[in-house]
Amino acid sequence: MIKTSSKRHHVVIVGAGFGGLEAVQGLASAQVDITLVDRHNHHLFQPLLYQVAGASLSTSEIAWPIRYLFRNRPEVQTLMAEVEGVDHGTREMLLNNGSRLAYDTLILATGARHAYFGRDDWEAFAPGLKTLEDATTIRGRILQAFEEAETTSDPELRSALQTFVIIGGGPTGVELAGTIAELARDTLAGDFRSIDPRATRVVLIEAGPRLLAAFPEELSEYTRQALQKLGVEVALGARVTECSAQGVVFGGYPLSSRTILWAAGVQASLAAEWLKAEDDRAGRVLVRPDLTVPGHPEVFVIGDTAAVAMSDGKFVPGIAPAAKQQGKYVAKLIKQRLQGGSVAEPFSYRHEGNLATIGRRRAVVDMGRLRLRGTLAWWVWKLIHIYFLIGAQNRLSVAISWVWNHSIGYRGSRLIMHGSTTNTQPHVTLPLGRGTSLD
Amino acid sequence: MIKTSSKRHHVVIVGAGFGGLEAVQGLASAQVDITLVDRHNHHLFQPLLYQVAGASLSTSEIAWPIRYLFRNRPEVQTLMAEVEGVDHGTREMLLNNGSRLAYDTLILATGARHAYFGRDDWEAFAPGLKTLEDATTIRGRILQAFEEAETTSDPELRSALQTFVIIGGGPTGVELAGTIAELARDTLAGDFRSIDPRATRVVLIEAGPRLLAAFPEELSEYTRQALQKLGVEVALGARVTECSAQGVVFGGYPLSSRTILWAAGVQASLAAEWLKAEDDRAGRVLVRPDLTVPGHPEVFVIGDTAAVAMSDGKFVPGIAPAAKQQGKYVAKLIKQRLQGGSVAEPFSYRHEGNLATIGRRRAVVDMGRLRLRGTLAWWVWKLIHIYFLIGAQNRLSVAISWVWNHSIGYRGSRLIMHGSTTNTQPHVTLPLGRGTSLD
Repeated sequence: MIKTSSKRHHVVIVGAGFGGLEAVQGLASAQVDITLVDRHNHHLFQPLLYQVAGASLSTSEIAWPIRYLFRNRPEVQTLMAEVEGVDHGTREMLLNNGSRLAYDTLILATGARHAYFGRDDWEAFAPGLKTLEDATTIRGRILQAFEEAETTSDPELRSALQTFVIIGGGPTGVELAGTIAELARDTLAGDFRSIDPRATRVVLIEAGPRLLAAFPEELSEYTRQALQKLGVEVALGARVTECSAQGVVFGGYPLSSRTILWAAGVQASLAAEWLKAEDDRAGRVLVRPDLTVPGHPEVFVIGDTAAVAMSDGKFVPGIAPAAKQQGKYVAKLIKQRLQGGSVAEPFSYRHEGNLATIGRRRAVVDMGRLRLRGTLAWWVWKLIHIYFLIGAQNRLSVAISWVWNHSIGYRGSRLIMHGSTTNTQPHVTLPLGRGTSLD
Repeated sequence: MIKTSSKRHHVVIVGAGFGGLEAVQGLASAQVDITLVDRHNHHLFQPLLYQVAGASLSTSEIAWPIRYLFRNRPEVQTLMAEVEGVDHGTREMLLNNGSRLAYDTLILATGARHAYFGRDDWEAFAPGLKTLEDATTIRGRILQAFEEAETTSDPELRSALQTFVIIGGGPTGVELAGTIAELARDTLAGDFRSIDPRATRVVLIEAGPRLLAAFPEELSEYTRQALQKLGVEVALGARVTECSAQGVVFGGYPLSSRTILWAAGVQASLAAEWLKAEDDRAGRVLVRPDLTVPGHPEVFVIGDTAAVAMSDGKFVPGIAPAAKQQGKYVAKLIKQRLQGGSVAEPFSYRHEGNLATIGRRRAVVDMGRLRLRGTLAWWVWKLIHIYFLIGAQNRLSVAISWVWNHSIGYRGSRLIMHGSTTNTQPHVTLPLGRGTSLD
C-alpha cells in the first residue's frame, strides 16, 4: 500500500486525453502533486486519427509522449498503467500491476471506446477507430485490400476487395468515407496495373435518416451530396443486420466486402464499474452538476466517460472542446477548495461548434448562427486543427504533409505493417502481370 | 499457370531493396516488361533503421510504397507476395498464394535476415533489426523498459530494466548503442520522476577483438573511445553463452537485462533453397562472375543473398553500394543480351567506403586513403544519407527531424505501439509517485 507522505494534496488523474491534459494544465499554479496515469505512453490527437487510417499522416504526427509534455512540471508524475478499480474507503486506485495508488482527489477522464451494441463478434470483421493501433490496423487493411485485388484473377473476390463499407454516418464515418474515396481515386489511381483503383466502391451506411445527426439538416444534406461527388455511395435509414468475413447485409441487401470499418457508436470506459457508480445506457457515469460522483466529492469524472446533464435536459456532447472545458473547470474547482473558497458554480457547457471534413477540399462547420460549408469551411477546419496540435515540430510537420498532399496527392504513410490482414479467406489467386495472361 | 503472351521479354525481380530497385532503374530504357515482387509494400532505407528503433525518426520517413516509386513506369508491375520456389524447367516462380509467375529472366535480390547461429530460441529475447516491424518492436521495448522502471519499486528489477545489452559490434550494434545511450542521457533525462534515465547502462558485447571489424584499426579504437564517452560499456573478445528473459551471460559473467538486442550476424535469404543452388556457410548463393547461377544463365542473384568472389579471393561485402552496383550491372547485361551483344565483362566491385555513426555528433568514415572521424565524419555521413534518401518530401522531413533533434534533443517518434513488451516476467510493482512512499 502507498500513502501520501508529503503534506501536499495529491491529485490523481487517469487518462491523458483532452480532458486529462487540460486538468493538468489548469493545476499548474496549485500547490498539489499530480500523478497522471494512462495505459498508453502518448497523448493522441484523436480528431486527426482518420488521416492516419487513410495513410495521409504518420502516427508520430498526431501523438506525443505524455511525460515529454510535462517534462518542465516536476510535480507531475506520469505512470503508464491500467486502472482496475477504485477503493473509496481507503481512497486508493488499484492498478493492473497489482499496486495501489493513494489519492486525495481523483479525476477520471478515461474516454470511450467503440461499441458494437451486443454484437462484439463483429469487431474482428469491422474494426473501429479509437487508438493509434486501430489506425495502423485500418490503414494496413485498406492498403492490403488493394494489393490483394491486384494479384487476384477472381473477379468476384477482386470486387469484394475493392469494396469498402463504413458503418455509421457520424463525423468519423464521413471522414473515413471521404478519405478512402480520395485515396482510391486520386492517390492510388496510377499505381496499379491489373486493377483500376478508381473503380473502388466506398459505401457509407447510416441507420438514421441523415448523416451528421448533430449538425443542422442543410449541412447533413450538403455532406451527402459532397460525398457522392467524391464517389461515395450513401445509404441512409439502412440498418446493418449481418457482418462477416464475406461482407455485410444492410436493409436486407447483401454486399460483398473484405474491408468493413466501424464508426457506428461508442461506449464509455469502465469508470462506472471501477467506481460502483450509476451510469446511463452508454456506460457514462451520471455526475453531479459539479462533475463529482454522487456521495464522493473527492472523485470527478469528465469527458466522454461522464454523463453531464444540461439545463435543457440534454447531455453535454462527447467532443474534445467539452472535455477540455470540463478539465479546466475541475482544476479551478480544486484550487478553490484548497483555498477554502465558497461552493463552486456548477459546470456550464459552452458549445463552440461542430466540425467535420469531407475529403481533401470540403468541410462543414456549424457554429450556431455561423454555418459554413465547402472550401472555406475546410480552411477553417484546417486552421483550427493545426492551431490545436500540440508541439511546434508536429504543427510544422503536419502542415508540410498537408501542403504536400494537397498539391501533389502523395500520401506519405502508405505503409502496411505486420498484422495487417484483410478479411480474405484462404484462396488461390493468379497474378495478372503486364504481358501475362491465363493459360 | 501463367504464360507470357506479349512478345516482350519478361524480367521478374524479387526484392525491392537497393539491388532490386537499381535493376528496375537500369532497365528503364530496355524493351522489357518487369514484375517486381516483394513481401512488403515498401522499400526500406535500411541504413537509417536504427534511428527508428531509437525513436529519432518515424517509420514513414525511411520507407516508401514500392508501386509509388514506379508509378510512371507502366511496364513495371509491382506484386506484394512471397516466393516459395523456382521451377527451372518451366521458368516459373512459385508464389505463396499458390500462383505461378513465368519469367524469361529472373533476378533474386532477396537480401538477408538476422541469424542466431543455431540459437534461434534467443530470438524471442534478443530481437534483430532488419524490417520496419523489427524497428518499432525494438523502439517499443526500449521505451517500455523505462516506463516499467519508473513504476517498479524493486531495485533489482529496476536495474535490469535500465540495462540494455547489444550483442554484436558491427555498424548496427555501434549505432544502436550510441543512440540508446543518448536517448537515456539527453532525450529522456528530464522526463522521469522516480528513476534517473542517466543511470542507464548500455553494454555493447563483441566476440571479436575490436569493434567495426571492416574498418581500419585506428577507427575501431576511436569508435570504442567515442562510445565510452557517451557512457556505453564496451566488452571486446566476449562471447555470449546465454540469453534469456533474465539477461545474458558473456565471458562467464552474468548480466541482468530486460532488453537485449541482436546485431551479431546475418544469414542470406532462402534463395539458394528456392534455386536448388550451391551456397556458402551464410546461405549465400555462389554465383558466377556475371552474377548468374551456374547452369542457369537466365537467373541472377545479387546483393546480400549472393556470394560474389573478388579477384583477391575475398567476397563482395553485404552493403548497400555493392547491391546497387550489382543491380546496375545486371540491368546492363540484360540489355546487352537483348541486343545480341558480345559476352559481358564480369562484374567488378568498386569499394566506395564504409560509414558508421556514433551517437548524434560523431561518425567514422573509411574511404581508402581518406579516413575521417568525429564531427566532420558525422556531417559527411549525414549529407550522404540525406542525398541517398528517395523522395523529396522525405528528404525534407528527415532533414527537419534531424535539425530538430540536433538542436533541442526532442525525439518525435517516442511511441509505444501494441505488442511491445519487455522481457519482464510477471511481477508486482509499486509506483513511487512524488509525494508517495512505501508503507
